[in-house]
Amino acid sequence: MLTFARTKLLNYKSVYMQEWKSYQEDNKQRFLDELLELLRIPSISAQPEHKSDMITCADKVKTHLEKAGAQNVAVYPTKGHPVVFGEIKIDESNPTVLVYGHYDVQPVEPLELWTNPPFEPTIIDGKIYGRGSADDKGQFFMHVKALETLVKTNSVPLNIKFIIEGEEEIGSDHLAEFLQEHKDLLKADVVLISDTSMLSLETPSIDTGVRGLSYIQVEVTGPSRDLHSGVYGGAVANPITILARMISTLHDENNHITIPNFYDDVQELSQEERQKLNSAPFNEKEYEQDLGVKELWGEKGYTTIERTGVRPTLELNGIWGGYTGEGSKTVLPSKAYAKISCRLVPNQDHHKITDLLVKHIEKIAPPYVTVKAEVYHGGNPYVTPIDSIEYKAAEKAIEATFGKAPIPVRGGGSIPITSLFESILKCKTVFLGFGLDSDNLHSPNEKYNLENFYKGIETIPYFHKFYAELKK
Amino acid sequence: MLTFARTKLLNYKSVYMQEWKSYQEDNKQRFLDELLELLRIPSISAQPEHKSDMITCADKVKTHLEKAGAQNVAVYPTKGHPVVFGEIKIDESNPTVLVYGHYDVQPVEPLELWTNPPFEPTIIDGKIYGRGSADDKGQFFMHVKALETLVKTNSVPLNIKFIIEGEEEIGSDHLAEFLQEHKDLLKADVVLISDTSMLSLETPSIDTGVRGLSYIQVEVTGPSRDLHSGVYGGAVANPITILARMISTLHDENNHITIPNFYDDVQELSQEERQKLNSAPFNEKEYEQDLGVKELWGEKGYTTIERTGVRPTLELNGIWGGYTGEGSKTVLPSKAYAKISCRLVPNQDHHKITDLLVKHIEKIAPPYVTVKAEVYHGGNPYVTPIDSIEYKAAEKAIEATFGKAPIPVRGGGSIPITSLFESILKCKTVFLGFGLDSDNLHSPNEKYNLENFYKGIETIPYFHKFYAELKK
Repeated sequence: MLTFARTKLLNYKSVYMQEWKSYQEDNKQRFLDELLELLRIPSISAQPEHKSDMITCADKVKTHLEKAGAQNVAVYPTKGHPVVFGEIKIDESNPTVLVYGHYDVQPVEPLELWTNPPFEPTIIDGKIYGRGSADDKGQFFMHVKALETLVKTNSVPLNIKFIIEGEEEIGSDHLAEFLQEHKDLLKADVVLISDTSMLSLETPSIDTGVRGLSYIQVEVTGPSRDLHSGVYGGAVANPITILARMISTLHDENNHITIPNFYDDVQELSQEERQKLNSAPFNEKEYEQDLGVKELWGEKGYTTIERTGVRPTLELNGIWGGYTGEGSKTVLPSKAYAKISCRLVPNQDHHKITDLLVKHIEKIAPPYVTVKAEVYHGGNPYVTPIDSIEYKAAEKAIEATFGKAPIPVRGGGSIPITSLFESILKCKTVFLGFGLDSDNLHSPNEKYNLENFYKGIETIPYFHKFYAELKK
Repeated sequence: MLTFARTKLLNYKSVYMQEWKSYQEDNKQRFLDELLELLRIPSISAQPEHKSDMITCADKVKTHLEKAGAQNVAVYPTKGHPVVFGEIKIDESNPTVLVYGHYDVQPVEPLELWTNPPFEPTIIDGKIYGRGSADDKGQFFMHVKALETLVKTNSVPLNIKFIIEGEEEIGSDHLAEFLQEHKDLLKADVVLISDTSMLSLETPSIDTGVRGLSYIQVEVTGPSRDLHSGVYGGAVANPITILARMISTLHDENNHITIPNFYDDVQELSQEERQKLNSAPFNEKEYEQDLGVKELWGEKGYTTIERTGVRPTLELNGIWGGYTGEGSKTVLPSKAYAKISCRLVPNQDHHKITDLLVKHIEKIAPPYVTVKAEVYHGGNPYVTPIDSIEYKAAEKAIEATFGKAPIPVRGGGSIPITSLFESILKCKTVFLGFGLDSDNLHSPNEKYNLENFYKGIETIPYFHKFYAELKK
C-alpha cells in the first residue's frame, strides 16, 4: 500500500524518467568515451613528476563542465594542485547542492601486478579497468553527465556547484585555504559526494559515515651508517628489528590498539545500533574467499562489519629498510621506515590521535635508536544523520532508480574534507557512492563496473530533484 | 733481548727487505693505478645487469696475473660467474700456498649516500674510496703485487696458486663444483686469504676465525591483492604487522635468539679464553661514537668483542612491503618480505641452522597469513688454530713488517668457502687481512687506506718465505 507521498513520488518519476533516460541512452557511448579519455591522464598527485599531468587533467575537467552547461567554470591555482569550479544557477531562492569530487588518483605501484597498463583503460566483461576508474574520476564524472542531462532536458531543479580538487589522495592540504578564500562562491546547502561504494546493485546502500584518518611516517635510525652485519651484527641495535618490535606492541593480544587514551572519544554503539548494523547482508566465507585468506583478523569482540565501519584501526601501509633488491646482502642498515595510519570514528579528533600516536611511538623507542615521526595528513570522521533531508533525498533517489530503498551502512574509508565543509562552509555532506568494495581502490587493477557508472548517472538527477522538493 | 730465532729472523729480513722494498717503492704509483682501474669495473655479482662487467673484470684479473709472472693463467667458466686461476711453480718438492680472493663486489644501494660514485675510485686523505676497495679487490690485488715482487726480485720461495672467484658476495654457489672438478690443479698445503680486517696498523691482529652464515628470505602473504586500508583495515591481517610480530619474537628480552635448539652446538669458551679474547684493545665509548649510537645492544651476558666474534647472531638485512614511495598511500598490502641472516660459530652447522630457522618461521606464522621461506646461501664457521704452521708464518710475517706480533682475534664476518677448502681440498685456511673495521664494507663509501694496501704488499712475501721455511 502506497502512502500519499510515495504515490506522488512515482507520478513525478514517470514524468522525468523518460526524458532523462532517453537522453542518457542516446549518449551512452559518448559518456563512456569521455570518461576513458579522462582516465588516460596519469594524474597522480603524490608524485612530483606528474605535476603537468595534474594541470592537463584539471583543464580537461574544466572543458567537460563547460560542455555540460556549467557557468563560471575556472581552474583555480592553489599552493598545490589546482581546483576546478563550475556552477549552474537557476534562482537564488532555490537550494544549492555543492558536488565535490577529485581528479587526482593514487600511485600505481606495484606496476607488475596490473593486467593492463593503469592509464590505458580497458573494458573487460562490463568493467572499466584503469587507475581512477572508480576513485574518483568515474564517480565525479557521473555528476558531470547528470548535470548535462538536466541542462539538455531543461529540467535543472536547483542550483548546482562543482568543486573538483586534485589533492584528495594526498590529504587535501590546500583545500581549507581554498574554501576559506571562496566561501561566498561555494555557499551551498549541502555537499554531495560520490566517492564511496554500495553493497551491490542488488542491495543498494548509502554510506552514512566515513572514518577519519591519522597518517604518519616513522624513521628509526640505529648506527649512523650501513654496517657489515658480520662485523657489527649482534653488537649494535638493528633498526629493522627495533622497528618490528615497536610495531608488534601497537596491538595487544586481542588486537586492541595499545596507545594510551586512543579509545577515549570512541562513540560506543548501543546494542540496538549494533544489531541493526550487523543485519546488513554479509557472508564471511565469501568475504574470505574474495580476499584469499583462510581466516579473518581483527579486534576481539567485534564483527567484520563493525571492525571496518565503527571501530578505529591502526594499519601499516608500508615498511622498508636495508637491502630490498634481488639476492642477498649482509647489511645491518642504518635506517628503517614505516608508514602507519589510523582510521578514526566519531568522536575521535585526528589532531589529538596523531599527537597520541607520535608521542607513543617516541615513548616506546628504546635508547639505542633514534626515532622520528613525521605527520602526514589527517581528517576527522563524519556521520550523516539518516533523518536529515539530504539523506532522505539520496534514499529516495536510489529507490526511484533501483526499485528498492538503500541500506544505511558505515563506510571504512576516509574523506577528511567532510569536516572542512562543515566547519568552513557550514554544510553537511551526503555520500551517494556507486562503487563496489571489489573495485580494487588504491590497488592494482582498479575497476569500475559500467553498469554502476550508468546507474549513477541515472540516479543523480533524482537526488537534485528530491532535495529541491524536500528543502522547500 | 732477542732469542736466537728472532736474531735469525732479523738477519733474514735484512737480506730480502731491501730488494723487495725497493722494487715496491719504485712501482708504488703503478700498483695503485692498476688497482684503481680494477675498481672502476662494476662487478656486482648479485645483479644480473652486471653480468658482462663480471666477465670484463675476470679478464682483467687474468691479465694482471699474467703480467705479475703467473703461469697457466685462465678464466674458467662456471654455471655462475667465472673463476680466474693462475700459478707459479718453482719445485714440486716445495710447499704450495693457494691464494684465494674474489673480484665480485656488493651492490651499491643506497646510491645517494655515496659521497663519490662507487665505481669512480677517489683518493681522499690517504684513503681509496670505492666499492671493492677493501672487499676484496684491494686486498686480493696485494697478493698479485706481492707475487710480482717475488718474481721480479727472483725470490719466489714456494709454489703459489691463485683462485680469484666472482661469487663470494652471493654465496659462492658454484665454487664447490669448481673445486671438485679441479682438485689436482688446486692441490695445495694451505689456503691464504686477505678478506678480513685488523685492529689497526698500530695494533696488528690476525683473524683466527670467521663466523658461518645462514641466509633466508621470508615472504608473508595476507590478502591475495593489495587492499584499501580504509575499506578493509581492521578486518584482515596486515602482512607487515604480522611480519613485525614474527620478527619481534626471534629474540627474547635478553636478546637471546629464541629458535629452539639454535644454541645446541655453540662452543662455549672457557673463562680463560674469554679473558684472553677480551684483553684485545677495545674502547666502548669510541666504538659508540664511531657508530653514532648512544647505547650498544646485544646478547645479555656477553661483551661486544664476544657478541661480534664468538656468539651467533640473527640480523634483519632487509624488510619491505606496502607503499614505500614518497607521500602517503592508504594501502593494506598483500605481501611483506624480510631478509634474515644468522652468523654462526663453531660448531654450528649452517644446513642445520637454516633448517631450524625455516621451520621456526613457518611454525610461528599465524593462520591468517601464508609464510614462505626461501633459502639463500650459507657457510660454516671456521677457526685457524694458533699453534698451526700457517698461523705462525702469518704471525712472523706481520712481526717482520710491523715490528710487533699480531693479536689473534675472532672476526665476526663469514667466509663460508673455508669449509669447502677443508672438505674438498683438505686444506686449512689462514687469514691475513689488512682491512679495518671502519672500511664501510658492504656500505656506502667503502674505503681502503693506502697505507694498509702498501703494508699488505710488503708483508705477503714474508708469509710465503716463512711458510716455506716452517713447512720444510
